[in-house]
Formats: sequence, C-alpha cells, structure tokens
Amino acid sequence: MSYHKPDEKTLQALKDIANKLRIHSIKETCASNSGHPTSCCSAAELMSVLFFHTMRYKADDPRNPSNDRFILSKGHAAPILYAAWAEAGFIKESELLNLRKIDSDLEGHPTPKLAFVDVATGSLGQGLGASCGMAYTGKYFDKASYRVYCMLGKDISILSPHSRGLTCDLFSGIEDQVNWHGKPMPKDRAQELIKDLLSQIQSPNKPLHPHLPNEDAAPADLTPIHLLTAPEYKIGDKMSTRKAYGVALKKMGDASPRVVAMDGDTKNSTFSEIFKKAHPDRFIECFIAEQNMVSVAIGCATRDRTVSFASTFAAFFARAYDHIRMAAISQSNVNLVGSHCGVSIGEDGPSQMALEDLAMFRAIPTCTVFYPSDAVSTERAVELAANIKGICFIRTSRPDNAVIYDAGEKFEVGKAKVVRQSDKDQVTVIGAGVTLHEALAAHDQLAKEGMNIRIIDPFTIKPLDASTIVASARATGGRVITVEDHYKEGGLGEAVLSAVGEEPGIVVHRLAVSHVPQSGKPQELLDMFGISAKSIVTAVKHTFAN
Amino acid sequence: MSYHKPDEKTLQALKDIANKLRIHSIKETCASNSGHPTSCCSAAELMSVLFFHTMRYKADDPRNPSNDRFILSKGHAAPILYAAWAEAGFIKESELLNLRKIDSDLEGHPTPKLAFVDVATGSLGQGLGASCGMAYTGKYFDKASYRVYCMLGKDISILSPHSRGLTCDLFSGIEDQVNWHGKPMPKDRAQELIKDLLSQIQSPNKPLHPHLPNEDAAPADLTPIHLLTAPEYKIGDKMSTRKAYGVALKKMGDASPRVVAMDGDTKNSTFSEIFKKAHPDRFIECFIAEQNMVSVAIGCATRDRTVSFASTFAAFFARAYDHIRMAAISQSNVNLVGSHCGVSIGEDGPSQMALEDLAMFRAIPTCTVFYPSDAVSTERAVELAANIKGICFIRTSRPDNAVIYDAGEKFEVGKAKVVRQSDKDQVTVIGAGVTLHEALAAHDQLAKEGMNIRIIDPFTIKPLDASTIVASARATGGRVITVEDHYKEGGLGEAVLSAVGEEPGIVVHRLAVSHVPQSGKPQELLDMFGISAKSIVTAVKHTFAN
Repeated sequence: MSYHKPDEKTLQALKDIANKLRIHSIKETCASNSGHPTSCCSAAELMSVLFFHTMRYKADDPRNPSNDRFILSKGHAAPILYAAWAEAGFIKESELLNLRKIDSDLEGHPTPKLAFVDVATGSLGQGLGASCGMAYTGKYFDKASYRVYCMLGKDISILSPHSRGLTCDLFSGIEDQVNWHGKPMPKDRAQELIKDLLSQIQSPNKPLHPHLPNEDAAPADLTPIHLLTAPEYKIGDKMSTRKAYGVALKKMGDASPRVVAMDGDTKNSTFSEIFKKAHPDRFIECFIAEQNMVSVAIGCATRDRTVSFASTFAAFFARAYDHIRMAAISQSNVNLVGSHCGVSIGEDGPSQMALEDLAMFRAIPTCTVFYPSDAVSTERAVELAANIKGICFIRTSRPDNAVIYDAGEKFEVGKAKVVRQSDKDQVTVIGAGVTLHEALAAHDQLAKEGMNIRIIDPFTIKPLDASTIVASARATGGRVITVEDHYKEGGLGEAVLSAVGEEPGIVVHRLAVSHVPQSGKPQELLDMFGISAKSIVTAVKHTFAN
Repeated sequence: MSYHKPDEKTLQALKDIANKLRIHSIKETCASNSGHPTSCCSAAELMSVLFFHTMRYKADDPRNPSNDRFILSKGHAAPILYAAWAEAGFIKESELLNLRKIDSDLEGHPTPKLAFVDVATGSLGQGLGASCGMAYTGKYFDKASYRVYCMLGKDISILSPHSRGLTCDLFSGIEDQVNWHGKPMPKDRAQELIKDLLSQIQSPNKPLHPHLPNEDAAPADLTPIHLLTAPEYKIGDKMSTRKAYGVALKKMGDASPRVVAMDGDTKNSTFSEIFKKAHPDRFIECFIAEQNMVSVAIGCATRDRTVSFASTFAAFFARAYDHIRMAAISQSNVNLVGSHCGVSIGEDGPSQMALEDLAMFRAIPTCTVFYPSDAVSTERAVELAANIKGICFIRTSRPDNAVIYDAGEKFEVGKAKVVRQSDKDQVTVIGAGVTLHEALAAHDQLAKEGMNIRIIDPFTIKPLDASTIVASARATGGRVITVEDHYKEGGLGEAVLSAVGEEPGIVVHRLAVSHVPQSGKPQELLDMFGISAKSIVTAVKHTFAN
C-alpha cells in the first residue's frame, strides 16, 4: 500500500475529527458515569487517521467481507471506537449514548453484540493474535486485498505513575494524575474541556469520506460441509481417536476449501499432519504458543471466512483458558481439538495428561464438548463440529482402541448411543474414550458370570443426552456407574449427575482419577486410578451385592 | 559474587564431569527406552560448571535452606539433572536408573516427588517465574546469600529443522536429524558414543567437591500462624468479602513475618493494598502479568520459606490455569485469592466476571476452595489457608453484604454452617457469597408467607461438607435448591450433586448463570440470571406446589 501524505486541508479535517471523537468520548463517559476518558482521548488522532484516511470500507455495510478490519485491543477505549462509527456513518450520533450498554461492558471493552465487532478483547493483548489470524486469512485463504488494523495499548497504569499511557496536551491537568483511571470527568470540567476542544475545530462540517474497498473477497459461504465419503473403518479395526481426527480433518479439507487447521508443534501427535500433507496451504504451524494459536484460530474464523480447527495436547489448552473464555464472549465458532487426554497416555507423565479439560470446556457457555470413543464417531464429531455455531472441543485419546460403530452409523450432538443392552440389565455404566472400552471389557467379563450391564457412550458430554441416560437408569433399577479418564470434578461424572439430579431414585457411583498421577504403562495407570475394566467389575459387583 | 577463572586442572576436571554426565544420560535414556539424550547432552558443560564450580550447597543435605537453588526449566533434560545429583553425591549412582520412574515423568520433566526438586516445570518456561519468586525471597525476605539458577531451553524443535537446540560436537551424526527428538540412542550407537566419551576423560577419579554455602538462611518455620485478635466485625455490618480479605491478610502479616503478598495491578480492587500499606516490604507488585504472578507466588512458597498470597480478579486466574495445574504437580502450598466473582460485579461486564473459576479450581486435585459469605468467615478462611498444605483458592465478592457471623464463630475446612433452620423446613437452600444473602432474603420473605426453608453456607466448596448437606436434605424431604453466581457447570451446584449423588431420594434443583452475561446493575443481573431472592422464592414455591 503506497503512502499518500494528506494535504493541509485534509490534515486539518483529520485533526477536527480527532477532536470531535474526543468530545463524543467525554460526553459518553460523563453520561454513563463510567469509563476511561483518558484512554479514549489518547487514541483520537490515530482513530481519525485510520478511519478517515487509511482504512477502506463501506460505511453503509460494516460487515462487507472486503472491508478493512479494525480490532480495538487497547484497554477501555470502546467509547472512541463508537464515536468513530458515528462519524463514519455506521450508526447515528443519537444512538451513541446507548451503544455501550448494548455492545460492550462498561469497562470499555467492545463485545460482538453488534455486527461491527469481530472479537471481544477485554483481556488486553488478545486482539493481536486474532488480528494475525484475520490478516493471514485475508492474505492466504481469501487472497483478498482487505487489511487488518489492530490498536494495542493500555491507558495510564491503574495504580502506578511510572508506567503511563499516551496522553494528549489538552489533558495536562489529568495526565499525571494516576487516580483518573476508570473515572469519568466531573461535569463542570467536562464542559470546560468540550468548549476548549470545540474552539480548536476549524471546519466542523467538512466531511471526510472513508475510502471504498476493492470488493475482491467472496461473500461468506454458509453452506454446511459434509464428508464426501463415509468413514472407511471396519468394526474391530484398531485406531486411536487422535489419528481418526487427522484422517477426518483431511477429508473435511477435501470437502471444502474453507476448512483450515493449525497446531502447536504437536502435529505428529495430534495427527493434524495428515491434513497438512494433503492441504499444506491451509495449515498454520503455530509452534509451542498455545495462547497465540487459539487467538489465530479465532481470528481465522471471524466473519465466517473459514472453518478453523486448532489442535494440541488437551492439557496445553489450559494455557489458553482465558482466550477460550473470551472466545465465548466473542461468539466465536472456533473448533479446538485436544489429544492425549488422561492417564491413558502412560509414560509421558502428569504434566502432559489432560485431567481437567472437560471441567474447563464444560464451563464455557457456548461450548459443545465431543468425546468420541472410536474412529467412526470421531470422524462424525469433526464433521458436526465444522457446522456448529459456538466453540467446539473434541477430546481425543492416545491409545489404539477398537472401532465399535458401523461406518454408516449416524451421530447427533446430544444423542448418546446405548452400545450394550439386554432385558436383564441391572446397572447402567457410562464411559467415554478409553473408559468406554474398559466398560465393554467389563461387560463381557460380567456376562460370563451371569451379570448384565447396560453400556452408554454419551458421544457429546455437553450437551449430554439426559433423556437416554435417565431412561436407561430407570431400566436398570436407578443404578448408574460413570467411569472417566479425568479428575472427579467437572467431567463426565458430574455431567451425568447434572442430567439426573432432579430425578428421584437414581444413584450415581463415579470412578475417576482422584489425585495427581505419575508415569507408568497406560494399563497400569488405568488400574492404579481405578478406571479400568477390573474396577468397573468390582463396582458393578458391589452394586449387585447391595 | 566475584568470578574466579578455574585453573587448567579444574577446567579439565569440569570437562571430564560434563562427559560423565553425558554418559549417565545416554545410559539412562537407553535403559528406560525413553527420553531425549540430545537435550541432556547439550547441557552437560553448563551443568558441570554450575554444580561443581559455581553453586554452593551441601551435597549431603539437599534441602538445606542455605543451599543455592537450581531450577531445570529446559525441556526433557531430567536425566542430566539426576546425573549431576549422582556426581555431587546427593544420590548413589546405583539409584540413577530408577530415579526417573520415581521422580519425573518419562518426558524428562522433573517433579517434586523427591526432596531435591522445588517445582515441576513440565510446561516449558514456567521455571523462570518460580525462580524469580525464589530469588526475590532469598534477597528480600530471607535476606540470605543463597543464589537461584534457572536453566531455560528446549531441545531441537520437535518437528522443525530450522529451530535447533544446542548441540555438542560429539553428536554430529544426530544434531541435524530432527527426528531424534524424544528418542533414545540405538544400543550399538550408544556403546560407540560412550566409548568415545570415555576416551576423552583424562582424570576419571579426580573429584571436585561443591563449594559449601554460607549458612545464613534460617530453618523453615513450620509453626501455625494464627490471627492475633478475633475479627472485629459486628453482625449486620456491611462489608464486602474482598475488603475483608485485605483486612485479614494485613492481620496475618501482623501475626507472622513469613506472610507475603503479591497482586496483578488490582490491589485497590482486591484490597491487598491494605496489606501493602502495613507491610510494604513484603508485597510484590506483579502488574498485569497473572501467569508470572502465580509463578512468583509459587517460587516464594517453595521450601516453606514464606506463606504467599497472590490476588487478582478471579476471572484473570484463567490466564494462569496451566501454571495452577502445574502447581498441583509441584505440591505447592500457594494461596490464590480471586475477587470480583460472578455477575454481581455489575457494570464492568462479562470479560471481568469470573463464572468458571470454581470449575477451574475444583478440578485441581490438591486444591482447597473457600467461598466465604461474610467478613468474619473471610477472615477465618485466610487464616486457615495460610496453614493448609496444597493450593488454596479463596473466592471473594465485590458487593457489600451484611456480616452474618459472630466474631467468635469457629470455622473449619469442610464444615458447613446451617444458618437458618426450623423443625418445619421443607427445602434446603445452599448458597455462597452474594447468593447466600439472596437466600437469606428469600427465607425471610417465604417465612412471612408461612413457608420455612433451611439455609446452608458451605464455607468451603472443596472439600464440601457432604454429611451436613445430606442430613439437611433428608430433614427437608430430600429437596435441595442450590443457587450460585457461577456457570452451571463445575461450580457449587455440581459439587452438591457430587455430595448427594450416591444418596437415594435426594433431588437437587440448581439456579446458576446459564449464558454469557452482559453489563448491568448487580441486582438487575442477579434477577436476569435467575439467582436472586426472587428466583429462589419462585423455585421454593414450585417445590412446595409439587
């Protein structure tokens, strides 16, 4: 992009707009009796030049895919963004005072309740990673000419006079006062400042029109993406769900050019490398920087430009939990895939074992949590995730386990599978991933001894199929056993308790990992933590005995 | 510390030790058939010089408080650390091959199962923050002369030839091969290398003794710390639990010089500023860097040198969740205090509201979770947390609520308070923080209409007082209502479900925040999300109607 120095008249008009933005910001923070006028005013010149000289967009079509993007990742500055929208004509000036109540929290962090905002950036700094994802998408996936601008910063440090934000000359009485953080102007002081600002505006009515974009980005394609061919596994095949993820993602990439992927330097473990090999131009290696990877994936998914899947060890998403909770506020559709869950990874040890990931992702309000138990269901989980609004999390496992579903089996979000049942079942056992296979082994062993149990594969942990679980529990005398490769808190067991909590007469016994694990062989650890077939058999027999 | 260049003989002895450490590492990774020999070998010279020239410690007393500390935050290099211990005489060489199975995961990240290791650093880079906390403690709190050494790094990038780790000349056949990550040497290649390394050792038996430390650090003081005076609140006083935290922490600082505090630039909101004003020399301002703050707090708490409390908005601990899960593996006793929980913070908006923090902290296996509901219980929570092993989390609230406990009330971990009861109670309502006060308001309103409810304050959410809750539920016809300023997953409601899940005949109805919130007045938001007195009254009446 070539640089054109604006002429004197334009320069003055930009200065005038900057002062108008200041006036708007002061009025708004005064009127709402909340906010950070200094943080807004310090950005006035930058906002004026960006919105009325540099950026290219259609003011009457703020979501036009070819518009330049602007991400406000400077703290507490939403009012000046809204002021710029009003000046640009996105919104009416009369709407300005109500906008913040609708669109942002009163700390002044914009949220995407209105179509203008792409990502919520209340946690300072996260906007940069998302902007990178958006810019990468524009350049490499959309191959369009829109640009992405991200304003980073923080106003005067909340409590520390030695780390000041940008200030402007007009605020000389305020700029050195650290206790101005988060405080609107007193009314009389505001009036005085506004008068002063108005006196500096030379051409109040000289309009500057934003430059129009090259309309070279295709409209967002919202058609569902389906696998071109059914899963190619046979019942009894041995295949880890992590590898099935890689196969499925590659097939989704075959089905649509909108599917993109990223990984955190673990692509040979998560098997996203299978996608990379087939679609290298749609893969972003984010290295060991999980927070940034999640932000980039969120950025790629904005405005439905791509369907993005980001994978790493499930444990490492703990590093990005703030980014994930902010993604929910951003109404993001990002898909996150965590491999190597639980103690069943074996020797690699506790730092690599995800045992709190279900608790993390279940507590994200927009999140669908998949926990597939074989390769066929994994493939369908990936297909479903690609088409679901909100965040999706897919939990995959390291061990090779048997394929248990026919390639033609249909899967739905919130619909469990009853994988073993008879008229004589005395207990319902619910497992997922490796523990479903342990439950199946327990089933077979108990059957030999004349004890029948019903086995449920929940497929999604959130939403959980409460009606199937309740019906099954009722059919088995109200007795339920859950078994999970996760800590006892916030995982499968508590999800099941939530599903049956208002139903009288159902009792849930939970098998889960109870303390920090250690290294060991996978099967040894499943035994040691009481979540193997052996423990299930013992728990079932205990139930039969009572 | 002055620098003494070692003489030629010492230099050669250090080189010899480096090669011995290499030999140990290769043998160990071969024997365990797992590990990263390159990551170990590249650190051999540094380890030799640190352990046999630079550091000062008593090899026969590895936990001596005056010893220099060493934090291995380089990936996958535990075997060479253990080799250095063997050379230094901490352990016998014969124990070496078994050590990794006991003390670390097989990825080669040390864990503190043995007394030599201060913090687990399986997540690369976290060791630096902990080292800073340890060094700060040595210099400013212990005022002792021990030094802290942290080795940072990563071996050759897992999959990318362009970002290589350090390599040593001996490994010329391996150093450029990216697929050597995480692979032990083939046996014949190992034999060849060991032979080569042995041939370079000139004085195999020349012992270098580590320098001894100045023993100027006091032995760890493990006596319990108690408030010098009881809480000074009267029933009915209005005081937020966040402010009560600041008052309590200051009093704990009065009681013991071991109590230290840190904050993430929110000390006027968390009220840790009250501690800072009284004990400025024991306060560390960590600014808006929550991950580092948590690491520093963990470092300060190692070897029981201090009792550390780190505070910020509860929501911002999401940023440090990986550090917190690693703290559990480190067996840390750090205390974390999160203010501004839930929608009751009001106008500041969703990015600032912690609604997943109980799910986060409950899923940490060593964690005690306090959720005090008034100033008196907050003060006792802080006192208890200071003396508890494992991680403690204290959840505090923004609004001013009434003091409900007498200043002399006793509190215990895992012991709930029945705050309202009668013989005619028909429902048990369990709330905490602001929702306990909403439950009390509901109680009074229902009582006027002739409906009696029992109210429970759990005090700690983990462990939860199952026996009091079950007894109360049985006394009220098996009917329980939980109400919490938290998302529905992983919080108070699911903790209660867990407590009663194996008890037949108890039904739990849960009131909780169900979707991403917005800005608003606190009371408006409590109403909007169905967790105010009004919603409790409705839920109770619904229960009575059935």
